[in-house]
Formats: sequence, structure tokens, C-alpha cells
Amino acid sequence: MAPDPAAFPKDLLSPLASDELKARIYPLIAIADEALTANLTSHVPYIEKVSSYIIFSGGKRLRPVLFLLAAAALGREGDPRLAAIFEYLHAATLLHDDVVDEAGLRRGRPAARVEYGNDSVILVGDFLFSKSYSLAVEVPDIRFVTALSDCTTIMGEGQVLELLHTDDLELSAEGYLGVIKAKTAVLIAAACQMGAIYAGATDAQVEALYDYGLNLGLAFQMVDDALDYVGTAHEFGKPVGHDLAEGKITLPFIHVRDTAPAEARARLLELARLGRQDASQVEEAKALITAHDGVDATYQAARRYAALAQAALTRLASPARPGSEMETLLALAAYVLERRH
Amino acid sequence: MAPDPAAFPKDLLSPLASDELKARIYPLIAIADEALTANLTSHVPYIEKVSSYIIFSGGKRLRPVLFLLAAAALGREGDPRLAAIFEYLHAATLLHDDVVDEAGLRRGRPAARVEYGNDSVILVGDFLFSKSYSLAVEVPDIRFVTALSDCTTIMGEGQVLELLHTDDLELSAEGYLGVIKAKTAVLIAAACQMGAIYAGATDAQVEALYDYGLNLGLAFQMVDDALDYVGTAHEFGKPVGHDLAEGKITLPFIHVRDTAPAEARARLLELARLGRQDASQVEEAKALITAHDGVDATYQAARRYAALAQAALTRLASPARPGSEMETLLALAAYVLERRH
Repeated sequence: MAPDPAAFPKDLLSPLASDELKARIYPLIAIADEALTANLTSHVPYIEKVSSYIIFSGGKRLRPVLFLLAAAALGREGDPRLAAIFEYLHAATLLHDDVVDEAGLRRGRPAARVEYGNDSVILVGDFLFSKSYSLAVEVPDIRFVTALSDCTTIMGEGQVLELLHTDDLELSAEGYLGVIKAKTAVLIAAACQMGAIYAGATDAQVEALYDYGLNLGLAFQMVDDALDYVGTAHEFGKPVGHDLAEGKITLPFIHVRDTAPAEARARLLELARLGRQDASQVEEAKALITAHDGVDATYQAARRYAALAQAALTRLASPARPGSEMETLLALAAYVLERRH
Repeated sequence: MAPDPAAFPKDLLSPLASDELKARIYPLIAIADEALTANLTSHVPYIEKVSSYIIFSGGKRLRPVLFLLAAAALGREGDPRLAAIFEYLHAATLLHDDVVDEAGLRRGRPAARVEYGNDSVILVGDFLFSKSYSLAVEVPDIRFVTALSDCTTIMGEGQVLELLHTDDLELSAEGYLGVIKAKTAVLIAAACQMGAIYAGATDAQVEALYDYGLNLGLAFQMVDDALDYVGTAHEFGKPVGHDLAEGKITLPFIHVRDTAPAEARARLLELARLGRQDASQVEEAKALITAHDGVDATYQAARRYAALAQAALTRLASPARPGSEMETLLALAAYVLERRH
């Protein structure tokens, strides 16, 4: 199941302190935010309203920031307009996901579908999807929009896969990896890859950035899935144990199901079958998963993928000079493991 | 509101009898069907299943056929793989529309959402949307995928506009035109435009084909909206008077609301306000609209747009030789007015 630990670097490179990293990232977030507002024009003001609700509700801007960093790391300042592609697409998937999951909360406030209705958010999601393509075709290099279509096609499959695996208590670790790759990692990978393409990088450089993003995305999602079992609703912005209550089978669960003593495994499966209805059963399952190292094992796996992300960057000819974007990208891979929301 | 009748050609060119037209169209439909099946591959068999359900439920294949005809009219055989773009996109919008409208029937059988659930059809719709882009980027001319993104962005706005105008009894004829242009005509226009681009046509030729498709699409949708008031459920595949019951305000209604004697207008508005709950009130509204020429006026408007479609083709240098695709395109514009489902 999980990759052989021997295949991974032992220690992560963490060249930047957290404050130093923030000082580098925040200006990029501000640039991305400005572009997100400027591009969100439509002949239909209502579309701007619904889009703004989801986009300006405290997103981390990870994807636009990665696009800007990747382009700059390969020697060309990234166009903030194009950075918006990845946040629009991300917002589109969140809007549709929330309808599919019948979510009530998103980032600590009512989900857009609660505020505006399922019908509106389905259609505004479609609009944002198209909007991201209308930005991508501005780049006259066909590789750019091709990377986007490769990405969204896999994402589309991934969303369906995740739906099909809802309540699938037998989902394997490989199956889980396939789902989070498609639903999360390929978009983060595309942001890095398209930054490199935009900068006119060689195919080998583009591939290295893609691999960086893909592994970073896997680590990112694994941390997300671990936090679902340890965070509090307050810091995480949505109910804890939410995934299990929704029938989403993630690595913390899979690890305990596959490695805990027989009695604990049997009880976990029993709780999972019952757990959707009853909050106290979700709580018991959560405690069981934490006690049997489900969360720790997930963090360890995330750590391995973060290291793979860093290793991909070392394939680039240019070394990570102090103050360089390459250094920031390396630091981000380490930082992903530290986030608490 | 409606364009000045003097601005339109008086008579439509109808160079082909209906049987002759069918003999030319059917082989193209067969080619499109084959490509639709061949391209509908996914790592996720369930996606093929849901997609096939909507795609092979008796669609007219108007859009793929127009793509093939437009390319051939401009001198290059159209690639059937690319013809599939337009049917996939069309299917994606139908899947999402049916969720938004809470539709029970589509083409005379249970809507896909009834069969597979809203969650599945939302996500499979997203997949088909991406699939159409993944085909479009195969054409190395950036104009090709740019035309697609222009189209889907307007479509996205159009779907939201239609939603916002649900139950808007004051919707103007211009507002109606804006809605049907965005939700129907621009995709038909894009099929023609992209056929011309694929054939390497000049900008003027591409524009002429776009205008042909746009006007054809408007005529097509107007006939659709008229049929909603005159067809029977059996021949039309969905309940008659459905639009009004759903709060969709279309040209037959608008015409009567704006031109009938005061008493009839008042009664119509009253029925429209009540009509969503009660089948007999929908029936009365339907009778009122037919009696006050709502259906006839809509057919007249459709006829004008069909004539505009034909006029756009005459801007092309090449004349419509007997047996040519140009002749078939001219005939299709006339045929759109004759269809009964």
C-alpha cells in the first residue's frame, strides 16, 4: 500500500522559518486577490455576487501563489490574471462539491448553496469553469490550455470516483491515493506546471514542476484528512469528523482498519456503518482512529510526499539560492505539514 | 422588440425536399454517433454509463452535423472526433439543467438525474464539459479552443440569466432573445464557426458561418418554445405547457402579454401567477396563448431568423452548387421550421 519508506529522503529541507515564509507569500496572496477581483466581471451581476461569496471567504490562495512562484522560479514574472485560473477552477469544484455533499458549512460560514440555492451554485460553478478556460486560451502556447484540459478531465473523473467510493469501507490505500490525486493534487500540479510553461521552460523543467505540485498536493490533502480527525470545528471552519459522517473514507481510517488489533478494527467498522446518523458514534470512531495511530501514520505519509515534492525540485538545473523562489517552493513543501487549518 | 420585418428576406430558400435532406443528413448522424461512442472512454466505467444514458437517448445530433457540414462547406472533411465536442457539451448542459429544473422526464424517459441521482449527473456533467475541451485542444490552432471558451462563458452566463428570469412575468422580448442566444444559439454558432476554423477558412468566412449558426440557433429555440404550447407530450417527449409550469417565460407568452386585448392579458398574467400549481390553469393559459396568436407570432419570428441564417451564407464567395454542403446548410435553415419534435 503505502510507498516504501526507504524510497524517501529522511529529512525535509526547511530552509525558512515560518515568519520568513509568510513574508514572502503574503505579497503574492495580495497580488492574486487583486487579480481575482479584477477578472470576476460578468454581464450578470448576480454571477459576481455568488462567485465572490465563495472566492472571498478565506481561501488560502495556494494555487495562484504556486503559479506565480513556479513562473518566477523559471525566470518569468507570472501574470496575476492567469493565476486566477486556478482559484476560479478550485471555487467551481467547491461549489459543485457542496451540492453533492449537501454541505451546510464551508470555511466556517454557510455554504454558498445554503445562501443562494443549489441551482445557482451549479450554474455559477459552470461559469467559473468556463472563465478559467477563457483566461487560459489567452496564452498562445497550446501546451498551456492543454495542461488545463488534462487536469480538469482527471478532476472530473476523480470527483465521480470519490462519489462512488462514498461509504466504501473497503477502499484501499491505493484507491484513496487515486481519489486524492484526481480531486486535489492534479490541480495543484497544473498550477505549477502551467507556471513553468508560461515561463517558457523546457519539457524536463515543466515535468519537474508538475511532479513537485503533484506530491505537494498529495501531502496537502493528507494533512487535510488528518486534520479532520484532530482539529476543532472552530479552527478548521467545519465540523470535525465530518469526512466519516459523510462516508468519506480517508487514510486515517484506512490505516487503523488495516493495522489495528482485531477488536479495534471490528469496532471501527461497526461504528462506520452506524456512524452517519449519530454524533456520539462519530466521536468514538474518531477517538479510536487517533488512539491507533491513524492520524500519526497519515502525517508520516504526508511527510514522505512533501519530501518527494522537494526531491522533484532538485532535478532542476538551478539551485535554490537564498531569497529565490525555488527556496520558497522548497519551504512551502515543509510548511504544508505544519498547517492547522 | 422584434426586428423590423422589412429587414428580412421575404421567402426562405428551401432548395431540398425533406426526404432529400434526410438522405444527406442521416449518414452524417451515423458518423457522429460512431465518434460519440468511440470517444466516450474513461477510467471510470460508471462515467461512460451515465454519459451514454443522456447521449444515446435520441438526441438530434444537430450540433455535430453542423460542424461536419461547415467544415466540408469550407473545403475540408470534418474530423468526427471533433464533432463530438458539441454533443458532449450539449449533454453536460442538459444534465445540469435537469438538476436545476428538477426535471422528471427528458426525451420521453426518466431524466438521468432520476436514474442516477443529482450528485452523479452534476459530476458527470463536469466531466463531459472537460472532455469537450480535451478534444478541442487537439487542434493546434488556438482560435479553435478560443471559440469554445467564448461560447461556454456566454452559455454559463445564459444559464444563470434564465434562472434569474424564472417567474419573471415582465421579461421583455429583448431579454428573451438574450437568454435563448446564450443558452442555445451560441453553441450551435460555435459548431459552425469551429467547423470553418478547422477547415482553415478566412476570418470573414468564419464569421459568416458563426452568424449562420447563431440565427439558426435562435430560430431553432423559438420553434422549440412554440412547440411547448402546441405539441403533444407523446410527440415532444416531455409534458406540454412545461415551460410555463416551470416559470419559463418564452416568446409565445410574451407576444400575447404585450399584444392581446386587455382582458386576455390580465387573465394570462393571473393564470401565470397561479399556474405552477394547477394543471387546468396551465391548460387555460395554453389555450389563451394559442388563441391570441402567440404560437403563430413565434413561428413568424423563427422564420425571420432562419432567413437571416440563410442570408449569412450568401456572404460566402462560393455559391450553393447542387449537391453541395452549402445547399444542405441552406435547406437545414428551412427545415428547422418544419420540425415537430
